[in-house]
Parts: sequence; C-alpha cells; structure tokens
Amino acid sequence: MTAPAIESPPDLSHLVNLGVRTATSSVIRDLLRLVDRPGMLSLAGGLPAPELLPVDRVGAAVAGQLAAHGPRALQYAPTEGVPELRALVAADHGDHVDHPARVDDVIVTTGSQQALDLLARALLGPGATVVVEAPGYLGAIQAFRLSGATMVAVAGDADGLRTDVLADRLAAGMRPALVYVVPNFGNPSGATLSLARRHHLADLADRYRFVVVEDDPYGALRFRGDALPRLATMTPHAVTLGTASKVVAPGLRVGWVVAPAWLTPALVRLKQVADLHTSTLDQLVVADLLSDAPFMAGQLDRLRASYRPRADALVDAVRAMPGAPLAVAGPAGGMFCWATLRAPRATHDLLPAALDAGVAFVPGSAFHLDDSGDASMRLCFTTLSVDQIGDAVERLATVL
Amino acid sequence: MTAPAIESPPDLSHLVNLGVRTATSSVIRDLLRLVDRPGMLSLAGGLPAPELLPVDRVGAAVAGQLAAHGPRALQYAPTEGVPELRALVAADHGDHVDHPARVDDVIVTTGSQQALDLLARALLGPGATVVVEAPGYLGAIQAFRLSGATMVAVAGDADGLRTDVLADRLAAGMRPALVYVVPNFGNPSGATLSLARRHHLADLADRYRFVVVEDDPYGALRFRGDALPRLATMTPHAVTLGTASKVVAPGLRVGWVVAPAWLTPALVRLKQVADLHTSTLDQLVVADLLSDAPFMAGQLDRLRASYRPRADALVDAVRAMPGAPLAVAGPAGGMFCWATLRAPRATHDLLPAALDAGVAFVPGSAFHLDDSGDASMRLCFTTLSVDQIGDAVERLATVL
Repeated sequence: MTAPAIESPPDLSHLVNLGVRTATSSVIRDLLRLVDRPGMLSLAGGLPAPELLPVDRVGAAVAGQLAAHGPRALQYAPTEGVPELRALVAADHGDHVDHPARVDDVIVTTGSQQALDLLARALLGPGATVVVEAPGYLGAIQAFRLSGATMVAVAGDADGLRTDVLADRLAAGMRPALVYVVPNFGNPSGATLSLARRHHLADLADRYRFVVVEDDPYGALRFRGDALPRLATMTPHAVTLGTASKVVAPGLRVGWVVAPAWLTPALVRLKQVADLHTSTLDQLVVADLLSDAPFMAGQLDRLRASYRPRADALVDAVRAMPGAPLAVAGPAGGMFCWATLRAPRATHDLLPAALDAGVAFVPGSAFHLDDSGDASMRLCFTTLSVDQIGDAVERLATVL
Repeated sequence: MTAPAIESPPDLSHLVNLGVRTATSSVIRDLLRLVDRPGMLSLAGGLPAPELLPVDRVGAAVAGQLAAHGPRALQYAPTEGVPELRALVAADHGDHVDHPARVDDVIVTTGSQQALDLLARALLGPGATVVVEAPGYLGAIQAFRLSGATMVAVAGDADGLRTDVLADRLAAGMRPALVYVVPNFGNPSGATLSLARRHHLADLADRYRFVVVEDDPYGALRFRGDALPRLATMTPHAVTLGTASKVVAPGLRVGWVVAPAWLTPALVRLKQVADLHTSTLDQLVVADLLSDAPFMAGQLDRLRASYRPRADALVDAVRAMPGAPLAVAGPAGGMFCWATLRAPRATHDLLPAALDAGVAFVPGSAFHLDDSGDASMRLCFTTLSVDQIGDAVERLATVL
C-alpha cells in the first residue's frame, strides 16, 4: 500500500466557516500556553483546587457502582441521564424552589457547557437576540455566538446584571429569546445578583416572555452571607443549570439542566444528536457522591474553608498594593474576583510584563463582546496557597 | 417564598425550531419503549453483549489511573483529549495507513456521535450537500439533517455504497461537501465497502474535492475474511472516526476523529463550545485498556468468538424460515444484518404483531431519508444467545 500524499495541501478549507474564533478566545488560549512555565504563579486559571478533588472517594464510588450495577455501568444509557442522578437533581432543585421538581424536567449534560450549547441550538439562531452580562462567562458567549444570534451586552456591577439597563433596552423594543446570568459569584465578575434584581429580572421575563438561564456552578461555594433564592422560584421561564464540576470534579464532565416541560423534549433530541448521552459511569459516580450527604457536607466545608482565606488574602493583598492601583470587590463565594485599574490603562498591555514577572491573570477584554473592559482583570484564587497569593500580588505590583 | 405558578402555560415554544424529529427517529424511540417488556426477544437493539463488557478490567483501570495521576484524573483536561489516548489512536491509525499519523491530527470526542455532530457543524449548513448511504446510520443522518444541509441518499448494496451511482450524480453536477460511509459491517446494512469501491470513492473525493468520512466503529469486530484498507490510505480528504464503544464499553462515551490538519482546528474550537472536553477519567481508562495489548487481543477474541456464532445462527435461522420470506446476507463482522421481505410488504406494518409475538426488530424505513426501504428490517445479533436467536426467528416466522 502506498502512503498517500497527505502532505499535498487540500484546498477544502473554504468549507469551514466558523464564527467561533474571536480576539477574546485567542487571548485565553494563547495565554494558557504560557502559564505552564516553571515558577509561574497563575491567577489566570479557573480550576478547582486540585488537593480537594476527592480522588479516593471517586475511586470508592467507581468500585461500588461497578459492583452494584455490573455491565449496566458501562452500557449505553438514556439520553436524558441515569434515573438515579436525575432524581437527586430534581430533589435538590425542589429544595431550592420550595416545591417538588419533576424528574422529567431534569436532563443530565456533559458538563454545563453542553447545556449552554444545547440551549443555544434550541432557542437561538440568526435573527434571535441573546443578552449576556458584561463582563460575562466566555463559554456561554462562545456557544451563543456560534448560533448566529445577535449578542447584546448589558452591563453588570457589584450586584450583578444591571436589570434597569435591561429594562430600558426592552422598553426600547429589544426582544431577546434568552437572557443569561450567573447569579452567584459570577465568572469573571465574582458578583452576585441582588434579590431585588432577581425579582426585577423575573418580572421582565414574564412581561417580555424570554427565557432566563440561571447558570449556577458556584452557588454551593458561598463562604459568606446568606443564599439568595433561585430565579426558578420567581418565574416559570427560568432554566437552571448545575454541575458537579466545582463541587465534585470537573474532569467527570457531569452537569444538568432543569427546564420547563415545553423545552425539555427539544433539549433531549439535540443531546441525542450531540453525544447520545453522558458517560454512564461518570453519572453513577456523581450520583453516588451527591447521595452521600455526610461526604458532600464535608466536601463543601473543605472547599469553603479553603477558598475563603484565599479570597480574603487576594483581596487584602490587592488593596494593600503600593499606590492602590487596583479597585477590587471581595466576593462572597465562588472562585474569582474582578479587579479594575484606577488609571486608564489596558490590562492586556500589561500581561506580557506580568508573565515575565512570573504572574498570570486574564485580561478583562476577554470577557466582553466588544473587547471593552480592558482596564479590568480576572483573578482566580482557588489554586494558589495563601502564601503564593501574597507572592503573586507582589509580582503584580512590580508591573503596575 | 411563594411557589411560582409553573403550572401556568408558558407560550414560548415558538422559540424552539428544530428539524430533528423525523418520522424515522420517532419510530426508533417509540419502539425502544416496547422492547423492555418482559419476555421480549429483541433483535432491535444496537448494544454490545453486556456479558463481554470488561467490568473488572475497567475497575482496575480506574484504580490504577487514580493512583498514578491523582487529581489530574479528575481535573479539567485539554479540549483535544488527554495525550496518552491521542498518542495511542495516532499509533493505531499509523498502523492502518502504513505511515506515521500525527498526534495533532487526533481529537478525542464524546463518542463518535459527537464527532459526527462536530463534522456537521464544521462542514455543513444550509446550502451544503451531504451524501449518505441508503440505508444509513441514523445518528449520522440526524446530525447532518440538523445542520440544515441538503441530504442526498445514494443506494448501497452488499458491497456498500454504490459508487457508480455517486459518480453519476457527481457527473450530473452534484457537489457534496461530505460523503459519509460506514465502510466495515455497516449499521444497519451489515455490508462492507469493497476494495474496488473504496478506491473509486477515494478517486471521486480527490477529483470532486469532498471530504469522505469513514466511520469505523465495527472494523475490529471482523470475524471472517481479511480487513480492507482504510480510505485514509487512498485520499488526503478522508476523515476517520473510531470509538471505544464497541470494543471496550459504550457507556464511557469515548470516541475519536483523525482529520486532516486544515480541519482539526475548527473541530477543536467546536468541541470547546460543545463540552470543553471529554471525561478525563474515561479517557485515561480507555487509554489504559487500549495500551494493554494482551487484554485487548483477548477482548477482541472474545467479542469475535461470541458474535460469529450468533450471526451465523441468525442468518441460518432466517434462511430456514418456512417459505423463506426474507432474503438476508451473512455479515463478515459487526453487530447487524439486514433482511428484506421477498413479498412487497412493509416491515413497519408487521412490527406491532411481532411485538405481540415477543420479538422486536427495527423497520428498514427508519434508516432512509424518505421512509423508503420499508420491505427491510435491521436485525442485531449481539445481545441474544444462539438459542434465543433461534426462538426469536421462530416468533418472527409466525408473523411473516
């Protein structure tokens, strides 16, 4: 058999017409190549603390689930998810919304990223409009952008999405199909949507009949203050996304969506096309852990007890920087805080020098539709120790 | 907190505009609800033999990988896949194509279904044309249909896709972006694309500059005859899909695509949107098993030694039916055979009576774009014993 001439340049690339690569995603991807350099103290990541990933507990769960279920744990499973996990998610959602949630309203997804993609494919497309907070979660922005929908950024502040600004846009005629929020400890902002704004947003959803997607990966990571009610308690037009990524392990790629009954059939059909179903074994493992209340209580305690001092150390160190070049809000949970230069400079211009100094962050422009927000940066406090965080901010101070 | 009025009917369903649900997919889904009835002998499934799913070996692999990698096995991983698995796939592909394959050309996917969806999103869309074999794999048809592309069916026979028919269509002006084949032991046909037709198809791809997707979940399940070379040995325009689903376990949802260098960046960006990456743990487990040559040799021997007598029992029993109502070809591997009524009757009309008699099959119309092929049925021989297969065909005979 002769080796084919695969070196010959095929000129089929005109077939690939993607709207995915943006200046912002290129920044992230190029950046992530640099943070692996030896000695780098990275505030740029978005990973859970590795030492808190429950390696032994997952190992026990796999052994237990394989013993309990045998081949079923490795066989094809329903597109909607394994019944054990759907029931747990429905029960937990019911606890949050003060009424029973139906198992049929729960679809297990391959991480919440897949839920975002399925929602975009079901609800958006050319001609549709979608609202995201600025700054907003990059994975959602990419999924919505790929749909071809018109993207509208509405500013957020320390209390989350500016619903007054949204209301003005709606009054002026904008008719979005979907409004996306991360209501608790947003990525990248660290902000939490206030109770008043939650009610306002729900009222707007009812009045203007759009879907509100509340993407809540971090809600259980609250280390200060009281939890606020889900948007699903306030409007029938809410879709709630959850994930095991930040409380159990991201590598298992297990998330879920709780959606209104009119929407779930479409999401299931799209998921069937997307990947048939999420890993059977990983779903059973996550169900095993989530159903182990003492373990989960301990796991969440460990996460909160780890993240709170790191967040405090980061905020305190930033505020103590000589000349106080950065304004920063202290988050009440989650993994991120958002810092903004008081001087009108672009953080992406500072990044090469910061990397040379051995510290990494994500420039704020990466989280905006229009590359605005360039005076800000996202700082992640989960993967460095308190001491390392102090050193990282010292390095940052030399650059600012 | 007051419970929301989620009973109130939201009228947002106009937002969902899907081209996914077809008469054919409805047939499959409605059918699959019935085959769980007690006592049913199902030839309708498409599952690997459960008793050959390597439960213990997977358990050992999980324990070993967690011990070897610790938190890394549960952490976020590269979108392209873990390096261990990509290297194994590249090496195996290199063995098949007689020249080294580049690790960079391999992307791990969440089952091959995701690879089909990513390819459709990268290469197809309204205005594009895609060719599928008739009958063809339903998961591919659904993914391609969702893209909005024009679907063209080209007939297959016992030697696979009728490349002479394809050549006529191309000569008449059709310009597909993608031609899809399952070259070995097709689903549902059981047919294998002949060597001459592989060369013909590759020549057509070179001449008319379309991508040939060779989806090969069953190639390693050959229990008779010699393997034929991959299309990737014959044209630089081939994309090869593989999966662990049929040789290790489908529930792990680990597949892969080997694509030309101009295409992989687009697929990676789409995969990032689709689910960030495939389960880290499942990828490491599959890499563990695939790198264990003695285990895999034994596993493939067990699968072939199990499937061959079942296939033979099915074909022999069908041919021995009173009056020989069905014509059937004996497959050389895989999981399926395709049987066609000699009388002009529709198998979907016979299905209710068959289910009442305690035997299930999938009507042929489910695998056609236009609900043609209704004189045929797909029979799966992997999950019943030889004795059960005999009983199932006896029940079928009472209905025909």
